[in-house]
Amino acid sequence: MPILMYDLAGAEDERRISPFCWRVRLALAHKDLPVDTRPWRMVEKDAINAAGVTTVPVIVDNGRAIGDSWVIADYLEQAYPDRPALFAGPQSRALTKMTHHWTEQLHRLLVPLILREVLAHIDERDSLYFRSSRERAFGKPLEAVIDESPAAFQRFDGALSPLRRLLRESPYLCGSTPAYADYIVFGMFQWARACSTHVLTRGDDDPVRAWLGRIAGLYGGLAASASGYVSWSPKPSMQAGSVS
Amino acid sequence: MPILMYDLAGAEDERRISPFCWRVRLALAHKDLPVDTRPWRMVEKDAINAAGVTTVPVIVDNGRAIGDSWVIADYLEQAYPDRPALFAGPQSRALTKMTHHWTEQLHRLLVPLILREVLAHIDERDSLYFRSSRERAFGKPLEAVIDESPAAFQRFDGALSPLRRLLRESPYLCGSTPAYADYIVFGMFQWARACSTHVLTRGDDDPVRAWLGRIAGLYGGLAASASGYVSWSPKPSMQAGSVS
Repeated sequence: MPILMYDLAGAEDERRISPFCWRVRLALAHKDLPVDTRPWRMVEKDAINAAGVTTVPVIVDNGRAIGDSWVIADYLEQAYPDRPALFAGPQSRALTKMTHHWTEQLHRLLVPLILREVLAHIDERDSLYFRSSRERAFGKPLEAVIDESPAAFQRFDGALSPLRRLLRESPYLCGSTPAYADYIVFGMFQWARACSTHVLTRGDDDPVRAWLGRIAGLYGGLAASASGYVSWSPKPSMQAGSVS
Repeated sequence: MPILMYDLAGAEDERRISPFCWRVRLALAHKDLPVDTRPWRMVEKDAINAAGVTTVPVIVDNGRAIGDSWVIADYLEQAYPDRPALFAGPQSRALTKMTHHWTEQLHRLLVPLILREVLAHIDERDSLYFRSSRERAFGKPLEAVIDESPAAFQRFDGALSPLRRLLRESPYLCGSTPAYADYIVFGMFQWARACSTHVLTRGDDDPVRAWLGRIAGLYGGLAASASGYVSWSPKPSMQAGSVS
């Protein structure tokens, strides 16, 4: 039986708008585990109650419900040790957790850039809940969080610097092949791509853009073919060298 | 024959003031390799010429001179594979390189906080070179870089957030035991400690402070016993649980 995954959707069922769900979606693909995703809205708390959480991702595997993207990654490692690893051992797991926390800082810089467009994609049933929960978290009206000024984009771009430098030297964050740390950071860009028309990378020669194209193309183009706006796919002339 | 290491010193030979040298010093200790350090000043370019670099750290091992902290770490891994590893495999190496680039961002936020005190510790022979090379890099007079305002300290403290969150969950950046990523970030704090009286951590319950104390105590207190100002050593009552 395939794993069932509750996946945050926007107004359209097929628009999947959670960075944390994308992490798990790619982790499942990495482990080559079949999955049925179920579009989920934020007000549907009852559906995921069994996992003891109030937000997705939640997976149900052999009748067991598990929530929280990091907990799910750990579960998948333990339950499916013979499948490709998400962490190459405990040291990689700790350093991946560091990437997880680093990505939270990036999220905070990204939200002002895409919030206006995220609001436009939230399902009607979720809009009151989304506004009240986020305004409580931010401590101000959503309209006061939105900031699409050049300075706000520069702050986000500047914060990408460690990633950009690494990707000048390495095809993936995890080295020559992708693993969970890649999916953590990629999930953020895929969340933006699902709702926003903003191009968050630099030009064609930006190693971040090339890396996004590589990950989006994995597993039969799982991420590239999902509902979204920006395309990271390499120009045909670049394709040959893009997975070196 | 012990490895020879050229190590940036301040006015006093025993004050070692380079974050990059501290990385290598701890990497050598991690591998339990005997080392003779030689105090080096920035104007002594000829002494390290053989390594093809103009800055330290430089090590000389069996007549071979090697420069650049990252290159040295790679060299030590390859030359001494039977000694404790700095990276637990290629994925850890890539994620450690990410930490390396992340730490460069931290350095940029730290410099304004400690530059006044660093200037007070630079050797007389280096002071003109230090000023001209750094003013060229910063594009402004050193006095315009110095910023010891509360806001500047808050920016640095905020940037520590991923590290602080990780260290709430894990005794070391690399998990249950320290490795090269720990030394990369620690080297920055040890550089600050060598010159600056500023306490860069929060209170006694700051997991960053506890981690600094743990690393400083490694290898017979190598870092804790070096010339510097701030002490991170745990209170006696905390000691028992500090290396869990």
